[in-house]
Amino acid sequence: MLSFESDYIEGAHPLILQKLVETNMEQMSGYGLDPYCASAKEKIKRAAACPEGDVYFFSGGTQTNALIIDTMLRPFEGVVAAATGHVALHEGGAIEMTGHKVLTLPGYDGKLSAEEVRTYLAGFYADGNHEHMVFPGMVYISHPTENGTIYKKQELADLYAVCRAYDIPLFIDGARLGYGLMSDESDMTLADVAANCDIFYIGGTKVGALCGEAVVFTNHKDEGGRIHHGVPLHFTTLIKQHGALMAKGRLLGIQFDVLFTDDLYFKISRHAIDMAGKLRDLFRRKGYPFLMESPTNQQFVILENEEMARLSAHVAFCFWENVDPTHTGVRFAASWATTEENIAKLETLLVDHN
Amino acid sequence: MLSFESDYIEGAHPLILQKLVETNMEQMSGYGLDPYCASAKEKIKRAAACPEGDVYFFSGGTQTNALIIDTMLRPFEGVVAAATGHVALHEGGAIEMTGHKVLTLPGYDGKLSAEEVRTYLAGFYADGNHEHMVFPGMVYISHPTENGTIYKKQELADLYAVCRAYDIPLFIDGARLGYGLMSDESDMTLADVAANCDIFYIGGTKVGALCGEAVVFTNHKDEGGRIHHGVPLHFTTLIKQHGALMAKGRLLGIQFDVLFTDDLYFKISRHAIDMAGKLRDLFRRKGYPFLMESPTNQQFVILENEEMARLSAHVAFCFWENVDPTHTGVRFAASWATTEENIAKLETLLVDHN
Amino acid sequence: MLSFESDYIEGAHPLILQKLVETNMEQMSGYGLDPYCASAKEKIKRAAACPEGDVYFFSGGTQTNALIIDTMLRPFEGVVAAATGHVALHEGGAIEMTGHKVLTLPGYDGKLSAEEVRTYLAGFYADGNHEHMVFPGMVYISHPTENGTIYKKQELADLYAVCRAYDIPLFIDGARLGYGLMSDESDMTLADVAANCDIFYIGGTKVGALCGEAVVFTNHKDEGGRIHHGVPLHFTTLIKQHGALMAKGRLLGIQFDVLFTDDLYFKISRHAIDMAGKLRDLFRRKGYPFLMESPTNQQFVILENEEMARLSAHVAFCFWENVDPTHTGVRFAASWATTEENIAKLETLLVDHN
Amino acid sequence: MLSFESDYIEGAHPLILQKLVETNMEQMSGYGLDPYCASAKEKIKRAAACPEGDVYFFSGGTQTNALIIDTMLRPFEGVVAAATGHVALHEGGAIEMTGHKVLTLPGYDGKLSAEEVRTYLAGFYADGNHEHMVFPGMVYISHPTENGTIYKKQELADLYAVCRAYDIPLFIDGARLGYGLMSDESDMTLADVAANCDIFYIGGTKVGALCGEAVVFTNHKDEGGRIHHGVPLHFTTLIKQHGALMAKGRLLGIQFDVLFTDDLYFKISRHAIDMAGKLRDLFRRKGYPFLMESPTNQQFVILENEEMARLSAHVAFCFWENVDPTHTGVRFAASWATTEENIAKLETLLVDHN
Repeated sequence: MLSFESDYIEGAHPLILQKLVETNMEQMSGYGLDPYCASAKEKIKRAAACPEGDVYFFSGGTQTNALIIDTMLRPFEGVVAAATGHVALHEGGAIEMTGHKVLTLPGYDGKLSAEEVRTYLAGFYADGNHEHMVFPGMVYISHPTENGTIYKKQELADLYAVCRAYDIPLFIDGARLGYGLMSDESDMTLADVAANCDIFYIGGTKVGALCGEAVVFTNHKDEGGRIHHGVPLHFTTLIKQHGALMAKGRLLGIQFDVLFTDDLYFKISRHAIDMAGKLRDLFRRKGYPFLMESPTNQQFVILENEEMARLSAHVAFCFWENVDPTHTGVRFAASWATTEENIAKLETLLVDHN
Repeated sequence: MLSFESDYIEGAHPLILQKLVETNMEQMSGYGLDPYCASAKEKIKRAAACPEGDVYFFSGGTQTNALIIDTMLRPFEGVVAAATGHVALHEGGAIEMTGHKVLTLPGYDGKLSAEEVRTYLAGFYADGNHEHMVFPGMVYISHPTENGTIYKKQELADLYAVCRAYDIPLFIDGARLGYGLMSDESDMTLADVAANCDIFYIGGTKVGALCGEAVVFTNHKDEGGRIHHGVPLHFTTLIKQHGALMAKGRLLGIQFDVLFTDDLYFKISRHAIDMAGKLRDLFRRKGYPFLMESPTNQQFVILENEEMARLSAHVAFCFWENVDPTHTGVRFAASWATTEENIAKLETLLVDHN
Repeated sequence: MLSFESDYIEGAHPLILQKLVETNMEQMSGYGLDPYCASAKEKIKRAAACPEGDVYFFSGGTQTNALIIDTMLRPFEGVVAAATGHVALHEGGAIEMTGHKVLTLPGYDGKLSAEEVRTYLAGFYADGNHEHMVFPGMVYISHPTENGTIYKKQELADLYAVCRAYDIPLFIDGARLGYGLMSDESDMTLADVAANCDIFYIGGTKVGALCGEAVVFTNHKDEGGRIHHGVPLHFTTLIKQHGALMAKGRLLGIQFDVLFTDDLYFKISRHAIDMAGKLRDLFRRKGYPFLMESPTNQQFVILENEEMARLSAHVAFCFWENVDPTHTGVRFAASWATTEENIAKLETLLVDHN
Repeated sequence: MLSFESDYIEGAHPLILQKLVETNMEQMSGYGLDPYCASAKEKIKRAAACPEGDVYFFSGGTQTNALIIDTMLRPFEGVVAAATGHVALHEGGAIEMTGHKVLTLPGYDGKLSAEEVRTYLAGFYADGNHEHMVFPGMVYISHPTENGTIYKKQELADLYAVCRAYDIPLFIDGARLGYGLMSDESDMTLADVAANCDIFYIGGTKVGALCGEAVVFTNHKDEGGRIHHGVPLHFTTLIKQHGALMAKGRLLGIQFDVLFTDDLYFKISRHAIDMAGKLRDLFRRKGYPFLMESPTNQQFVILENEEMARLSAHVAFCFWENVDPTHTGVRFAASWATTEENIAKLETLLVDHN
């Protein structure tokens, strides 16, 4: 069946599989201590213009979020996130399972603004009872957001300035980072992202890998020359404790090594953006209302429930939210693997709502 | 210095101390297996018209909340609470420390309505992605609320009906329960509370005891005759695990035995309501604006910051929230121990704002 | 460099890679809801003669252990394990991170005997203070053990009988299950394993997969016809919460589908046993002392420290334990990928100790 | 019924009750910010010759242990304890509930020796796989131990030297500290205890208080002048999070203020030691075998089961362990409240075994 259900419905980019095959019988140490992990780390640091950074690979997004947040926070701290943030809504309580509160702010279009965060932080410390409350110990944003929106460079810089002022790390969930950076509306490079946060990750699972997320600790220095928020002490043990240490770390290293060779990561991300643009145009042309506007690879449209049922028999897409008793918001996702052929097939299934 | 800082600024009701002195050299088993705990439990079950209930004593409110919520929830569940709820805001993340999310709803005047909860629960199960979300596994309310408001009997019954319909327990934090029940606006008895929830507690620390909260599992039956949400299996071990098992359980048993002899708990709660009424009248007469209206023992007024500074030198009260750059909301609390004499002293410190 | 460092130094069995390539562009739903996961589950249930079982796939061993143990235990329970058990020693506290104690027994050769467990359980319940202690809520064993030893069928049956008598699940960590089953000393089939426990897993990471462990809930019935210890309620949410839900579940499904086609899993396991036999013979012939005897794929020998340093320059192996100030126990592991050619190379590096 | 069941079968020392009565209507701030807490802290620091220390009060032993251990450990660390240690055996998994492993060593007579701990720590860091293991992050001992034995000053100094060498804190559970210090075999003062550890607590619940333990952070300096292991950051919030912040902190402050006035704590501890000596003499004279020898307030004797049943009808004592099918080890505890009259009554119940 035709599917636009998500950006993880196909396997991996063929170059990744090819490299897995080529290197298959090479003997390497486990746990990420292999030459492909080392090479991938160097390539990522170069691409992010972040030579003093540290890079780690994990197998999935929720695992990565829970691990980073738990190990960066101190026990009296929680993580500030938009109410729509993945860690706030769609991780089954993974953050709370580690003992930390997600401190939600309303946000706007899935984003947190510097002003909203500053007001919250200032209010927290001005509250005479704040010692009985969970301290804000990190700011989490996703880029692109769960709503498919993106931050402008200045917005991110402003947000990071607030975090620095309060001495808490800014952590960017980049599960779909490539799709954000290659959006027509983006004014940021990977280096801009790295320059404006303490930790971010480059999503692989949704951008061409079989699995894998590359976490970058940027290791920015404070004025005194000390690393602002670097790698937690004994991080290997903490990764093991979280069940996130892959025995065959090569699986992740090889994939990211390929993704960061010849700009593959960016090229396939750009392809997804192009395909998403065609999806957007298609729905617009046919007169479908949009649930929200997105310049990235996810397109959110509203379907009348009867049409939704009819379409479901022919094409897969993702439930997003109930709009009203007779309408539902759904997501059509493009990815590195989306073809024009499939979009043409989709067109034949849609009706004209004009 | 004169103080209306809270309802826990004095020691215990004199009859409690007297009983502690009288029974002091009696030898009893520890961990709540003494005759005074047994007697207090019987008296509480009688007062709550809840003969099939189970009663346990703990030393403080946050401890009680974290213990009950953690042990009643299953690991995939969180607790639904108003955004102003004590467990959501002012327990330093005690609930999250046990691995559970607090699922906050806006609420109104510190209360959750049956309708708000029903809408939330229905929406949760209608959400196609709810398996990736934290399940609502309990509803927590406080009575009176943190805003000093109270539930009407019908409101509570409606809320409990929603909980029963979704088969999740309703838990009432009654840290100030007496002050709620004896409020002029209350149309509930202790038995009404017990009839309309699965677990509640009767606050002692803030209502005349040195320390202590009495948790009642009401053990209401389902239609099939099974207990709806009763005492967790091996509860003693769980209490121990939470560090909440007092060696000298008698300390709690004796206090509640006294509080539930000759209606002492209700009489001293009523006294607090009378005193709070006098405080309310005083502030009103003097033209002070109120932050919010409360029919219970806590009165919330707005002070101009300069007056606040001046008053602070003579009378203690509690910071509540910053209203604007020049005004602050503060709380004056009455209790079982408040005297008319002290209210008269307070009057001499106030200025006329009319 | 030549390596016998572990059984996870190569990639995946070539048939697995071939299948990943072949299926790469097929569009499938995520989270394990794809046809390859379904097919692999059926094949595993057939191979284990366990038609009523439930099968789940996870990416690694520690993740699997922590997830299963945490979600099967009740909060007042811990897991009984040998002191040498992986969960007791080498998972960085992953079990404790979920809030549960590992209740260690000395064991023998890395194994727990029915008698040792029975004595422990009987002693626990006979202890007048056991309500202040952690209840034994599961028995964990590994097969083969961390010492490379295996259980005989009768030993396992006896152990399971004890677990059934105390109504607690028996959980088998089979990270190297194939190597145990195909050992010359094994008198068990996969079906025997399934018949004699409540949950076990079939290790893929160390037996030919890129990553992955297949957990089988056997769903054995009690006399009353109820499932003894089945899949935890809302298991998908719990998996998500633990960060163990792979978006591209196909990666695991395809691998296990291949491993359980034409007995591949057993054939490659047998190959490893053959190679381990050659390693054992080689070290014996050369007069190296053994740290412990193992009939499985891991061989443990004692090296004089100077020789260890010399060898390390040419061949990789794994530190096991310090024997005395001048000797160290090390592990040489064979696997599905070990070649006779490499063993021959190793021979040229060894000296004759006879 | 006559009782030697524990050292917490009576209420509080009469001077404590008297002070609670006298101060009852004084108005004080909550959460330990009252003058009696301040006064008690000063008196304790003076008694412990520890002027730079910090003192905190909690309501019970398990709560204190879990709080201190959890907040002093880093997430990759566990606490080293004797297998008989209270935190290892009799706290229902309270330490594990906070996410930390108890790393048990066999110990001897309930004690850990410097040599045993040094060997363990050296072995840990020499283990090539220690990054996959839980790091030893604290040493916990109890003084007196659960077996009623005590440390000599030199033993404690040696143990502390090991901890300092490895830069981990030494924490002493002094739930019965007074009974250890006043033992005939003790060569330590309270100041010696304080000088030889980083954190210890002075048990109140079992030594004359209604409830309460006084934790002392000794704040010893390293050579560089930095505090070795001081009070955790934002400790008030952490206490709240653990449900251990008493609203009426005065209850604890007043009690310790009385206990540390005119050496009351030591005098009543000495009384218990005298009474325990009389118990020991009585059992010895009557020919009862001892389960183990104790120079402190707990006496452990072995009873033939039939005699145990007969005695149980007349006098309460505590189960300790099953010795063999016909004999049981039990504990008779003396305390600050034990009377010679009751010992005389006990004598009439015992038979002559000579």
